[in-house]
Amino acid sequence: MLHRARSIDLTQVAEWSDGELRRVDDYLAAEEPLEIRLNGAPLTVTMRTPGHDLELAAGFLFTEGIVERGDQIQSLEFGQTEREEASGNIVEATVSGNACDSERLQRNFFTASSCGICGKASIDAIRARGLRAPNPEFRLDADVLCTLPDKLRSDQAIFGRTGGLHAAGLFTAAGELLCLREDVGRHNAVDKVVGWALGERRVPLGDCALMVSGRGGFEIIQKALCAGIPLLASVSAPSGLAVKLAREMGMTLVGFLRGRRFLVYSGEQRLVNGQSVSFDR
Amino acid sequence: MLHRARSIDLTQVAEWSDGELRRVDDYLAAEEPLEIRLNGAPLTVTMRTPGHDLELAAGFLFTEGIVERGDQIQSLEFGQTEREEASGNIVEATVSGNACDSERLQRNFFTASSCGICGKASIDAIRARGLRAPNPEFRLDADVLCTLPDKLRSDQAIFGRTGGLHAAGLFTAAGELLCLREDVGRHNAVDKVVGWALGERRVPLGDCALMVSGRGGFEIIQKALCAGIPLLASVSAPSGLAVKLAREMGMTLVGFLRGRRFLVYSGEQRLVNGQSVSFDR
Repeated sequence: MLHRARSIDLTQVAEWSDGELRRVDDYLAAEEPLEIRLNGAPLTVTMRTPGHDLELAAGFLFTEGIVERGDQIQSLEFGQTEREEASGNIVEATVSGNACDSERLQRNFFTASSCGICGKASIDAIRARGLRAPNPEFRLDADVLCTLPDKLRSDQAIFGRTGGLHAAGLFTAAGELLCLREDVGRHNAVDKVVGWALGERRVPLGDCALMVSGRGGFEIIQKALCAGIPLLASVSAPSGLAVKLAREMGMTLVGFLRGRRFLVYSGEQRLVNGQSVSFDR
Repeated sequence: MLHRARSIDLTQVAEWSDGELRRVDDYLAAEEPLEIRLNGAPLTVTMRTPGHDLELAAGFLFTEGIVERGDQIQSLEFGQTEREEASGNIVEATVSGNACDSERLQRNFFTASSCGICGKASIDAIRARGLRAPNPEFRLDADVLCTLPDKLRSDQAIFGRTGGLHAAGLFTAAGELLCLREDVGRHNAVDKVVGWALGERRVPLGDCALMVSGRGGFEIIQKALCAGIPLLASVSAPSGLAVKLAREMGMTLVGFLRGRRFLVYSGEQRLVNGQSVSFDR
């Protein structure tokens, strides 16, 4: 069942410019709740930009640890509802395995907007997930790395019209864009990319770099680690805890990637520069 | 009990600039989980920047509808834990009234990182809260409005050093900054401001404007509405659903506030320009 997802809203607004006021048309990034149901029971509601919703649900189930492998997801489909306005806002997931332990979910999984680890109801649960170090052999040329922000932005179809969306893009070591997803929620953009990769049976993504438009927060790192991504780059700052997690797990973390400059917070051995001079100190 | 909250982490990173690599010191916005406990039971965990944690908890309880009035919060204090590293990351809230209906919380309140309405476990619950239209008499001069972003940024102590934080600032109609809070989470910054106002017994904030550094998403609007704030301005884009909510509730919503230009999405009657020409069409 395919829903026509509307990712952009059009509206009339007032533009004030140095004392002058005029009516203008404005495109807005759409935002609607998506309820993910697990084996028939409500699991979570996330505010997201409609589009690629089944990928979002798949990525969410995987990066939140509801399933440990993509093949545990037996089916994903849009759910039925009597309320017309909620049509297309419900995804029914059927999964196999221990994932359906609803008591565990009630205790450890109070999440929203795919906020990752922040959704756990107990601090003690935060480091309990068994994430493994991503591919140590992955290498990325610093010159290629510097091209990723422009590639991300130029492919951001919705952002270009609304100015209001986060993006996550998956790139090869050669700098080829494999998948780009946009969403009002940073985490959702990442989940959509991971969901795409699950569908393509490309997880773990040990030969890819992930570029995100926003900050590199703890939960973004966690989601990328879950998908086996060895290098995460963002145009903005990571948090202290994100850096700690990346260092502990051996992920390469790049921030403030702008023009021909960036900061490397962790795992710099995966970066080589254009002159093939390694980063080894 | 006062905890010394550490809002900034210092670390060494590698700076790559056009092929040159060097070691530099870098300040990072701290990010730690905060568990909010309600009448002895775990309620939620949010990833936040330490500091103003009791305000964050108060604002969260109020803007999420756990309490309907500030005086229902009987006490807020840091909780005890055997784990040294979690010290200062638990807030114990004692509240009175219907707020403690834990079954209702289980059903309707699966939230994280203070994501607001997105945290509800059922789409049907999304519009169920009884929010009222904010003060229709509030007016703000467009020239004053244009000064808010610079005031917000110049007071952002942590951002200046880390580049990695969202901010929310509460302003009077004269453009005076009443309260500014920073956090890795956009929603947390708003909750900290609202929590401050609750402590000052200034809620509803019918004579204030709220300026946020990020997007104006649905849940930010919801939190501001909950606090009775008549005007919300952001430097970036609102979502389509945020605009719908602001229009439905009669809140003034301003976006893309940069320099001497902004867009008015809703409630433009509250804005007057520097020449006292009203916005009436």
